[in-house]
Amino acid sequence: MMLEKTTRLTYLFDFYQSLLTPKQKSYMSLYYLDDFSLGEIAEEYNVSRQAVYDNIKRTDAMLEQYEEKLLLFQKFQERQLLMSRLREFSSSIENSLEFEALLNELEKLD
Amino acid sequence: MMLEKTTRLTYLFDFYQSLLTPKQKSYMSLYYLDDFSLGEIAEEYNVSRQAVYDNIKRTDAMLEQYEEKLLLFQKFQERQLLMSRLREFSSSIENSLEFEALLNELEKLD
Repeated sequence: MMLEKTTRLTYLFDFYQSLLTPKQKSYMSLYYLDDFSLGEIAEEYNVSRQAVYDNIKRTDAMLEQYEEKLLLFQKFQERQLLMSRLREFSSSIENSLEFEALLNELEKLD
Repeated sequence: MMLEKTTRLTYLFDFYQSLLTPKQKSYMSLYYLDDFSLGEIAEEYNVSRQAVYDNIKRTDAMLEQYEEKLLLFQKFQERQLLMSRLREFSSSIENSLEFEALLNELEKLD
């Protein structure tokens, strides 16, 4: 599995997991977050390796479709960039602690 | 129709319309954005007033379910509040034009 693709899907899973079914969520979480192999997930759920593979592939595609429509990950990345540029102002601001606190709260909203 | 509820649904429609079908989008757009009556939409699409009403009610519920899961409107409101507090720093910042420009770009991402 390409590292870059895995990172992207881990992010997409983070943004859109609330739209998935419990089974999709379990498979994705084991595969992308806990680094289980397809075989290990298959054993855990007493299904074929192929069934797990198909389910994960379909969920990957669903996540990409949600991203195409809602762009939450893309906007997150654009926001991160703007936030880091805003943070550069901090040193020149008198009440910089409050300023930093506001930026941190903003960042937590993503 | 209560004004507050209409405003909320107009926002929800704005955030989640990409997840609706073309027909749902048309009805919602005419009803909430162009202020058509149920009867006028029914005439336009050559269906019963009840059919339009049912479709819109179902779509309203879908939008509320998406919001329950993704919280895009709630986060938007929280972000707006933080942004207006960040904007208050502007007057005390040397390079305030660049600062304002960054805030405006951030705001456009919602």
